[in-house]
Amino acid sequence: MPKGPQEPVFEAVTRAMVERAPSVVRLVGHGSSDAAASYGVYAFGLLPGWTAMRDSISLTVYYDAALDLSGSVVIGLSQSGETPDVVEYVRRARARGALTVAITNGPESALGEAAEATIPLAAGPERAVAASKTFLNTLAALALLAGGAAGRGPEIGQGLRRVSEQLAESLAPLEAAVKTVATAFAYVGRMYVIGRGIEFGTAREVALKLTETCRVAAEPLTATDLAHGPVAALDSMFPVWTIASRDESLPTLIDAAARVREAGATLVASGNAAEEIEGAAYVLPVPEPSHPILAPLLSVLPGQLFAGALAHAKGLDADYPVGLSKVTRAR
Amino acid sequence: MPKGPQEPVFEAVTRAMVERAPSVVRLVGHGSSDAAASYGVYAFGLLPGWTAMRDSISLTVYYDAALDLSGSVVIGLSQSGETPDVVEYVRRARARGALTVAITNGPESALGEAAEATIPLAAGPERAVAASKTFLNTLAALALLAGGAAGRGPEIGQGLRRVSEQLAESLAPLEAAVKTVATAFAYVGRMYVIGRGIEFGTAREVALKLTETCRVAAEPLTATDLAHGPVAALDSMFPVWTIASRDESLPTLIDAAARVREAGATLVASGNAAEEIEGAAYVLPVPEPSHPILAPLLSVLPGQLFAGALAHAKGLDADYPVGLSKVTRAR
Repeated sequence: MPKGPQEPVFEAVTRAMVERAPSVVRLVGHGSSDAAASYGVYAFGLLPGWTAMRDSISLTVYYDAALDLSGSVVIGLSQSGETPDVVEYVRRARARGALTVAITNGPESALGEAAEATIPLAAGPERAVAASKTFLNTLAALALLAGGAAGRGPEIGQGLRRVSEQLAESLAPLEAAVKTVATAFAYVGRMYVIGRGIEFGTAREVALKLTETCRVAAEPLTATDLAHGPVAALDSMFPVWTIASRDESLPTLIDAAARVREAGATLVASGNAAEEIEGAAYVLPVPEPSHPILAPLLSVLPGQLFAGALAHAKGLDADYPVGLSKVTRAR
Repeated sequence: MPKGPQEPVFEAVTRAMVERAPSVVRLVGHGSSDAAASYGVYAFGLLPGWTAMRDSISLTVYYDAALDLSGSVVIGLSQSGETPDVVEYVRRARARGALTVAITNGPESALGEAAEATIPLAAGPERAVAASKTFLNTLAALALLAGGAAGRGPEIGQGLRRVSEQLAESLAPLEAAVKTVATAFAYVGRMYVIGRGIEFGTAREVALKLTETCRVAAEPLTATDLAHGPVAALDSMFPVWTIASRDESLPTLIDAAARVREAGATLVASGNAAEEIEGAAYVLPVPEPSHPILAPLLSVLPGQLFAGALAHAKGLDADYPVGLSKVTRAR
């Protein structure tokens, strides 16, 4: 297979990361970028076996904590590349000796300038305010970096090419399927979105999309956290969206779904193991990727499409939610 | 001042932690214990300047990821000491060479047995299902460990003694004040609870209390995350509880509160800087502690009392929420 134009960029960044042999990979971002960071924790944990964390931005940017960052790789995530405290975090981390990498759709942005190395998402302009394709490309970039660090870049790269075909094939049937759910959910005011392990980031992203485009109070929870309190709030007006993928965390999802059913709440099952969720009112399966770590790129699709369909059913403009803008400058 | 009976325990654990010179402190817990872990990230970050994280339990327990834990201190948090995957995480981390510490109200529990060292919370039996005094004692234990690691144990210990007096003085006036808010909020179905930095853990705990005891869909958000999507869901039926403490993150809270007002949502201001939040419909101030890091022990009180009052106003039993039990055995 011929090399893509970005392969040398990934190879150089991967090499620098491996040379650093980081004690910790610090991922920073807000909103969808922070959901992608949750995915990064698993990509780095499972592929090279590195400890990765969604770092506290405020410790470094507001409190100026005396953390030792010299053994760290920092990955700053921002679609626009202009999120002020992510840029400031990366600037300070670089000054303190961290290896800093930006993953952004705006390589000429302040974030691109602040970081030592930049991975451009090359997603083309995001026309809607709510990120969708840049989210997918961020996951892909994190998978490629983690795969490269584990010496498995080509295998992950090939898996991603297959994922892009699987996504294209899934679009039309899923678009049809989510419409039925959207009609039924037009008056829903609150939801939980449940995922665990590699799919917790997906749950965070789907919940955020529902919140920002459909004005639903949708909270992401791990399967286990549901039992530690929130299950008490459920009733027939409070549906739960589950993201079930075939991997080691699936049994926890199946347990959580049983608890949701007991509470009398409506269940939606998505993911490549959606059929394993018993008693779901709606089932939205997606194809299985060549490697389990790539599952979230497919699992997020039903949620993204559902958010669009639900916004439409509610008469809202999914592309331009009230009170939001393309570049979030909030500190 | 005479030594308390637990001081030798804290001193021994602190010494062992300092000897380990951890590259990362890994905090693990679910529910209220996980909210306390958020506090621990700041206590360790700000006092000894150590990197602490809420670690992924599933990476170690379900995926068996090949992480190097030899340079880590692990702190397992569980009120009962019986949360299955926290116990299993600590067991595995200990086998892989981490220094393991349990903080629990059940020192004779499975968690106490799994960890190398145990800090008993000594809170007496938690009679209600929803933890309250064990949450406070967990924060205090984390502050003492972090303070000890920074060579500032006695100063933090003295601050905590003062906090306990401040809490006692605040109870009666706050109990009266929250009743008015509870009456007004009897039909509220969804809320955001906003905090940042050291108060993000407090926001998580208050949101959890409202969810489990009052059946409100209450989601915790950092001040900045509110602007990255969720602000679009706000309206006059969707109030926001803010926790404002006088520290370096306060300006982000003030900005977020302004956004909430613009969206037409009702604002509740709590914390020792509650008066700085303009346009709040309800103001629930608490005293300032001797050291800013101790603020969350006071800031959580209005939320805890409000959850009790709101459950009462809704005719719910705050002590025994439907579907929950004292010891959560969910995986």
